[in-house]
Amino acid sequence: MKQSVTIVKVGGAVVEDESQLSQLLSNFAAIPGPKILVHGGGRSATRMAQRLAIETTMIEGRRVTDGAMLEVVTMVYGGLVNKQLVARLQACGVNAIGLTGADADLIRSHRRPPVAIGDKTVDYGFVGDVDHANGKLLGRLLEAGVTPVIAPLTHDGQGHILNTNADTMASETAKALASEYDVTLIFSFEKKGVLLNADDDDSVIPVLTHSDYERYVADGTISGGMLPKIKNALSAVDAGVKAVIITQATAIDGKHGTIIRK
Amino acid sequence: MKQSVTIVKVGGAVVEDESQLSQLLSNFAAIPGPKILVHGGGRSATRMAQRLAIETTMIEGRRVTDGAMLEVVTMVYGGLVNKQLVARLQACGVNAIGLTGADADLIRSHRRPPVAIGDKTVDYGFVGDVDHANGKLLGRLLEAGVTPVIAPLTHDGQGHILNTNADTMASETAKALASEYDVTLIFSFEKKGVLLNADDDDSVIPVLTHSDYERYVADGTISGGMLPKIKNALSAVDAGVKAVIITQATAIDGKHGTIIRK
Repeated sequence: MKQSVTIVKVGGAVVEDESQLSQLLSNFAAIPGPKILVHGGGRSATRMAQRLAIETTMIEGRRVTDGAMLEVVTMVYGGLVNKQLVARLQACGVNAIGLTGADADLIRSHRRPPVAIGDKTVDYGFVGDVDHANGKLLGRLLEAGVTPVIAPLTHDGQGHILNTNADTMASETAKALASEYDVTLIFSFEKKGVLLNADDDDSVIPVLTHSDYERYVADGTISGGMLPKIKNALSAVDAGVKAVIITQATAIDGKHGTIIRK
Repeated sequence: MKQSVTIVKVGGAVVEDESQLSQLLSNFAAIPGPKILVHGGGRSATRMAQRLAIETTMIEGRRVTDGAMLEVVTMVYGGLVNKQLVARLQACGVNAIGLTGADADLIRSHRRPPVAIGDKTVDYGFVGDVDHANGKLLGRLLEAGVTPVIAPLTHDGQGHILNTNADTMASETAKALASEYDVTLIFSFEKKGVLLNADDDDSVIPVLTHSDYERYVADGTISGGMLPKIKNALSAVDAGVKAVIITQATAIDGKHGTIIRK
């Protein structure tokens, strides 16, 4: 029987709200067994960019990352947010270690080529599309009782850091561990799960499959930012991740939210 | 026989000069066997603070670190400088992993109490004096073929990051490994070694002992910023570090500079 590992992805909004953050950290600390935290930090990056008079451009919810913005996300995600989470988790008795994809060659990516969006061509700049996640070192760290805390940055193997979507970091990490571990991947965010009715916070869809997803996209039930999140979740399920859950950041015990199934 | 490990400390001035940095990285990559890089980044921190309209106050060469400055050093040392070094080393074929003292509880410290300097009392703020360095995880990483790259930040175990002198980080790391490894600790900086005559760059003292140090301090040959550097070096030698060398950043092969002996 494989050992279990739980991977929790938490977004920037939770990380930046002190009461939500402290609850998340104690809930995360309470998860038994080996575990990994993957975090965002977009709001902190936007705020820091603003203080540095660097303009933030988002296209379809994704950050355009020029050289100046790359410096901001490298220091905010890899430094400020990551190290504060690590120190806070240490105080909760979790032996956390902060990592980006560059550290120990954990997640390697290539710079995203310009993409067509509508009738325009968009160059997202220093943004990485993941090529390979390295489960071996993660496994060694987990075996040593260490809890990786992963920032949404990767590298290209040529000396460059690349800004990478945190949901993608989480699903790629989950996939990389799926052959050796029974992986539960929890995407946490501000809602209670995937909603049947965006205006009703309690209309959580308990189980969502590929065919459900296609039906809900076709009839407009699911749209916007939920689309890439569910796609990431489904790709993880397809790659052998045992359980994928989309849930509220305050309910990461595996018993709440929407379960994603093949 | 113990295995060898080389620890190189490099200051901010080298890290921030592209031609010096690329030479350092290739020289560091060429060091055979297990190795660790410890870096500073003070100039980058000062520059970033300036861009954020945060005033930098240095007293006796040490940075006063209030809450705003702590954010700056956390993101600049732990994020910007550390992750760029890691990505660059990965491109040189070195499987680098970036760490602060908070990561995996590597180096724990306590906040420095206010100190008397002359007739004043100075509160350095969120500055850490090291209590304990944990050699065990470093050993595991070295055995796994991973090269730690350590930023000058520690934690207090209560959830707080503390700004910590990079020379101290290097000597504490060396001491923590001294019982298990034959450690060579190389402090690199802009001069060729400890100079007999500050105006003659070639007047390198080849070997320096405790008694030499006391004599040179008494007669004024050694003063200023060299004092804490040599004190750190001597404390490492006293704690069983096999060899400590103070040398130029472009000459870290262990064959140049000043050797510090008991």
